[in-house]
Amino acid sequence: MSKIAAAGLALFVLLLPAGLLLKATPVPSGPEYTSDGQMKLPENYRQWIYLSTGFDMSYNPTAMQMDHHMFDNVFVNPEAYGAFRANGTWPDKTMLVLENRMAEGKGSINQRGNFQGTDVMGIEIHVKDEARFPGKWAFFIFDNAKTAKVVPTDMACYSCHTEHAAVDTTFVQFYPTLLPVAKSKGTLSAAYVKESETAQKK
Amino acid sequence: MSKIAAAGLALFVLLLPAGLLLKATPVPSGPEYTSDGQMKLPENYRQWIYLSTGFDMSYNPTAMQMDHHMFDNVFVNPEAYGAFRANGTWPDKTMLVLENRMAEGKGSINQRGNFQGTDVMGIEIHVKDEARFPGKWAFFIFDNAKTAKVVPTDMACYSCHTEHAAVDTTFVQFYPTLLPVAKSKGTLSAAYVKESETAQKK
Repeated sequence: MSKIAAAGLALFVLLLPAGLLLKATPVPSGPEYTSDGQMKLPENYRQWIYLSTGFDMSYNPTAMQMDHHMFDNVFVNPEAYGAFRANGTWPDKTMLVLENRMAEGKGSINQRGNFQGTDVMGIEIHVKDEARFPGKWAFFIFDNAKTAKVVPTDMACYSCHTEHAAVDTTFVQFYPTLLPVAKSKGTLSAAYVKESETAQKK
Repeated sequence: MSKIAAAGLALFVLLLPAGLLLKATPVPSGPEYTSDGQMKLPENYRQWIYLSTGFDMSYNPTAMQMDHHMFDNVFVNPEAYGAFRANGTWPDKTMLVLENRMAEGKGSINQRGNFQGTDVMGIEIHVKDEARFPGKWAFFIFDNAKTAKVVPTDMACYSCHTEHAAVDTTFVQFYPTLLPVAKSKGTLSAAYVKESETAQKK
């Protein structure tokens, strides 16, 4: 073997573990489905990019007051986050994960306000899969299961997201690190811009 | 050049872009300081691992009620998160970032509860740097600046964290994905275990 070839092989061998090391801590991303069309829960979504948290949020002003408080945390797969930061739009295979957690009050040294409990009360996923869904996007609601059926398109979440979303059926208006990106890239929906202008005039 | 060597070089060339690609989206982690000992704000902490969010949390039961609500989000550098998941303890160079955000109420389609605004009101960092700080850990408070001086060790945050933290001066009791790890690894502090037992008896 020539010296050059040996050096090439040596470099390859040196690089191999680095590649494996990087691949040993992967962040698998993008939707996966069972053979009967259910979505598999992405087990590592807590290692995806965090977008924001709401507290007792509701679209309904007359929502029944619950006897407890709730947090909802939103995560997005890293590839989609990178693309949105660059372009202000969501790429195909975007997955937004909404995780609901019960709020706890007094506990340990916390005397006021609320922190998040260890039990996940539910997970909802909003996915963009252009080849799979006629409307490009679909919702899945996981009830403590590892798989979920798609939410039928006549359910209110679809029309509400279409009508009120700041960007491409997603509520970017509630994601503080992404709203400025959409503004600067000019990707806010016409409906959202009109709604914001009306609200400012009030 | 022999066929084997050529194959080795070809593999190397194939692997190289993959390695560069992975390295092109780095997650720099671990503390950096200025020459006069201030900590530099880690610019990409929002791409670190999310731990939890509190709402109006306070250690003071008689805290003055504010005319607004606040969220605090906590992030940790990925290496430290991985080590904690494996061992239930924090490695050297752990950085916990507390980000305070003003809560907004009614807005867009949200009619109830609160979501997070786009302005960061403050950032506090709790860092483990064993060679640098006699107590291993230190606090830094960033007021809209890119650097911060270390908080003097006679300030209350040090004694409070030492006395009440679930694990190694950190409030793991408020981090829902890590508290079960610490329980299963047996790394909860004696003080926290005693406090929990007393609370359960009440």
